[in-house]
Amino acid sequence: MLLYNSPASGNCYKVRLLLAHLDIPYETCEVSVVDRSNRCELLGELNPSLRVPTLVLDDGRPLAESNAILWYLGDDTRFVPNDVYERAQVLQWMFFEQYEVEPALAVVRFWVAYSGSPEKLTPERREELTKSGNRALSALERHLDGRDWFVGDAITIADISLYAYTHVAPEGGFALEPYLNVRAWLERLAAEPGHVPIDA
Amino acid sequence: MLLYNSPASGNCYKVRLLLAHLDIPYETCEVSVVDRSNRCELLGELNPSLRVPTLVLDDGRPLAESNAILWYLGDDTRFVPNDVYERAQVLQWMFFEQYEVEPALAVVRFWVAYSGSPEKLTPERREELTKSGNRALSALERHLDGRDWFVGDAITIADISLYAYTHVAPEGGFALEPYLNVRAWLERLAAEPGHVPIDA
Repeated sequence: MLLYNSPASGNCYKVRLLLAHLDIPYETCEVSVVDRSNRCELLGELNPSLRVPTLVLDDGRPLAESNAILWYLGDDTRFVPNDVYERAQVLQWMFFEQYEVEPALAVVRFWVAYSGSPEKLTPERREELTKSGNRALSALERHLDGRDWFVGDAITIADISLYAYTHVAPEGGFALEPYLNVRAWLERLAAEPGHVPIDA
Repeated sequence: MLLYNSPASGNCYKVRLLLAHLDIPYETCEVSVVDRSNRCELLGELNPSLRVPTLVLDDGRPLAESNAILWYLGDDTRFVPNDVYERAQVLQWMFFEQYEVEPALAVVRFWVAYSGSPEKLTPERREELTKSGNRALSALERHLDGRDWFVGDAITIADISLYAYTHVAPEGGFALEPYLNVRAWLERLAAEPGHVPIDA
């Protein structure tokens, strides 16, 4: 398999982390998240949104959207439950991740730490995104009260998806100190056998 | 089943449309999309994001996120394929919907047509969202070239998901005239037996 990848992207890290857990070999093609001028050329035929990660299967068929890739790789493994309701809950938390977590945590982190032009994030927009990011973190904190994992009693792809941008949120200026359950869950996930860090 | 619902919400309409196709009876609890003051009281125990749709199953268990609800209801019916790759493609397009389509098309439509305070959408923000909405519509247009449906050769929950906000995009000022494939697909979907309109 070929993964169009960016080392700093949390969305790409989700896929790399699951591939590591599943011990699946793959090659990467590195794509810049700052200079996007070659996106059409690289990804035009593979991904309607021209984003990474994009996975090309061994037979050449492409797959896009990090959480859809997690489902493809994770279904029929211990990272996706068998129970119908729990499967829907895994999807619920991955849609929450892509709608509430990523657009706040990832966007601030990108502009502040990776864009090379942090001034393009206006103070008003940063304040707005920081507020919505903390609202999302509070929802994670409440759900983790009394729970080790987001769905059921074992790690799933929902945890892997939510971990990606949550654990690097401080790079965007988010303070994780108040989120005790979130911090314990981050440590729990990083202690899983087979775990690899984002900069592995 | 009990659906926490708002008549104008495209995310709720997705669920109502699939329930109609599947001929599943349900009750609704109407929730305002403008006055959000009772959201915590209504949805606090049911949905971490306090949004509609929220579905409560017959046994009392809640499920949130429109596209996760579509998967729960649609799996093992003709609206979700059996093939592993096609299943991942259905998810790909639903994540695309929630990340690229909804945040542009739904947000402009809400402020312009439903908020009661359209002046809160600044011209700059509207221009930005209109641009990203048209980028998403162009991606749909390209993918539908030579295709009747988004995945495989029959309607799936990916089509239902993408239909919801695309067909009412003109309420937010989006012009669908240039998108010939999209318009043909909208008509195709609305002609399916069992279809119900958003204001049914």
